Amino acid sequence: MTIGVAVLGSTGSIGTSTLRVLARLQDRFRVVAVTAYGSGDLLEEQAAAVGAEFVGLVSGRAGTPGCVGTECLVEAATRPDVDIVVNAIVGAAGLEATVAALEAKKRVALANKETLVMAGELVLRTATENGGELVPIDSEHSAVLQCIAGRPVAELKRLILTASGGPFREWHRDRLRAAKVEDALRHPTWQMGRKISVDSATMANKALEVIEAHYLFGLGYEQIDVVVHPQSIIHAFTEFVDGSVLAQVGFPDMELPILYALTYPERVPDDAVKPFDPIAAGPLTFEAMRHDDFPTFELGVAAGRSGGTCPAVFNAANEVAVEAFLDGRIEFGRIPEVIQSVLSEHESGLADDLAVILAADRWARETTEARC
Amino acid sequence: MTIGVAVLGSTGSIGTSTLRVLARLQDRFRVVAVTAYGSGDLLEEQAAAVGAEFVGLVSGRAGTPGCVGTECLVEAATRPDVDIVVNAIVGAAGLEATVAALEAKKRVALANKETLVMAGELVLRTATENGGELVPIDSEHSAVLQCIAGRPVAELKRLILTASGGPFREWHRDRLRAAKVEDALRHPTWQMGRKISVDSATMANKALEVIEAHYLFGLGYEQIDVVVHPQSIIHAFTEFVDGSVLAQVGFPDMELPILYALTYPERVPDDAVKPFDPIAAGPLTFEAMRHDDFPTFELGVAAGRSGGTCPAVFNAANEVAVEAFLDGRIEFGRIPEVIQSVLSEHESGLADDLAVILAADRWARETTEARC
Repeated sequence: MTIGVAVLGSTGSIGTSTLRVLARLQDRFRVVAVTAYGSGDLLEEQAAAVGAEFVGLVSGRAGTPGCVGTECLVEAATRPDVDIVVNAIVGAAGLEATVAALEAKKRVALANKETLVMAGELVLRTATENGGELVPIDSEHSAVLQCIAGRPVAELKRLILTASGGPFREWHRDRLRAAKVEDALRHPTWQMGRKISVDSATMANKALEVIEAHYLFGLGYEQIDVVVHPQSIIHAFTEFVDGSVLAQVGFPDMELPILYALTYPERVPDDAVKPFDPIAAGPLTFEAMRHDDFPTFELGVAAGRSGGTCPAVFNAANEVAVEAFLDGRIEFGRIPEVIQSVLSEHESGLADDLAVILAADRWARETTEARC
Repeated sequence: MTIGVAVLGSTGSIGTSTLRVLARLQDRFRVVAVTAYGSGDLLEEQAAAVGAEFVGLVSGRAGTPGCVGTECLVEAATRPDVDIVVNAIVGAAGLEATVAALEAKKRVALANKETLVMAGELVLRTATENGGELVPIDSEHSAVLQCIAGRPVAELKRLILTASGGPFREWHRDRLRAAKVEDALRHPTWQMGRKISVDSATMANKALEVIEAHYLFGLGYEQIDVVVHPQSIIHAFTEFVDGSVLAQVGFPDMELPILYALTYPERVPDDAVKPFDPIAAGPLTFEAMRHDDFPTFELGVAAGRSGGTCPAVFNAANEVAVEAFLDGRIEFGRIPEVIQSVLSEHESGLADDLAVILAADRWARETTEARC
């Protein structure tokens, strides 16, 4: 019996990588459902190639073949023939599908950061209460999971997530203020989508990862550090209670964490990853985060520490501000300013209910939109 | 109930580190036996401090309090109140104690490389047949064990052991020929005993570790690489079948692998290890081994590949040649030459019997001695 997989967001960067990984492991997995937001043609192509029984196009209209509308996501994620849901949806839209999949006792291979950032406690509770399982795809969190390798998380003492520093690692805040879109999209070590590339340029991405790590591994914020590591070879340092530190190491390649999330805790033979060569990797260097130049990072971590609906508001404000930057409506330096002004107005509530979280998300989007 | 520990070689570098670790974990462990070769005064002091019931001085004469002679090692290692035997004996003398301890179903925390180099197959068979357990203390092998963390060794694909390069990393073979004892003892990153420091200078140490890894992790020699890493921060890279690589990372400190060997697979809280700081660790660099300048390494690995009694002969010839170098009887450049001439004369036999191995060891010592 092969394992049934639903790939949500199959036409994006993580989605297409996931399909490549699954194509190599057909003796073990079969793709039963694919969904995308737009990119209907590519989606059709993918569905035909893998023989998916379910095709969902979120932006599709009545008349489009297959499922159309947002409902497709939950429908794909909860199908009885699906064992693993790869959630590679970009942005807040991924949350409901994650919750539904966990309620249906699926394994969720999670590339959608927003799921945990917006609703970490709720999502973890859902997983625990229903027997669903959450496995990260993010390279940093996958690195930590690999280092834990099934040992109790109580043996963890501290994480040091690495950040490439993004395209603006050496830029000073004065120059950053008016950084152009094409500069922000020029990531030095990872090929990624536009939104996440900008998040990497502002370091918002790393704040989202800190929040995600907080929930995934049950660590306090004081136990999660970030260090800039321009080569992106070491993806995270995992320190244990005895002081020992393990790290996952390798040339940047998202197919590896995707593969691990699918087969965890097992490892299956796969030769597609470029073999690691420490000499070719070159000197590995580490620098402190320049907090003053990347205020979005601090805003995100502070929102995480505040808890409640604050991380959801940070996430929504960031999404809208980044969109506005990509559209040329605000300049790069305005991104943290807008987020901060929205956060400062937010009255945080308990984030134990999806409706409350989605309401905070909507409020933050509208409020941010009005300022961009 | 606390766990009973015998520390063989308690007055050496690893032995004293072990006692320091055990002193911090008195709620979990008690030292019931200590042994040493010489250093009788220090041994007495240690025994009194930890309240050991058994004290064994290998070089002691009749009349010395406690046990005297080589028999002490096996006696200490097989006591019923001993659960873990820390074998920190330097050289071939550690082999018999390891075998006896494994036959008595003990865990052997092994810092004695010679045990596996001389008698890898025999020792592993003894462990398997009797239910004893072998846990490495060597920092490189401990690193690998930590990365495996209980997963099946079948998931391993390749190891890359790191070597600091020793004090002669940048020396050319012409200069190496007449290197002085004080140069050879000046190890850049680790504080160690004299014999192992010279082994590090010739890179014989790394060959012994490759052979050890071959047996410990069931890997072919083609699956074990070595890379020079002058900072000694990454202790080994462990590559899995899916292409992922884990590494254990940290400031050089033998107390960590000792602690892990005692508590494996658990990790217990300990604050004595200097917390890892990637920025303070500085740039991490990697270089290829310069095989032509360090022929002892190749000789050792070739002996490992030949198998049978060859690794035991390499080990014995190396011990005697290093001793001769430390005594000023031969120059540094003669070490590999002497080893090579002894190996080329050796008629290898099956190493499935302790008597055969010890005979090969004796033959190699005498033959080497005659050439120094």
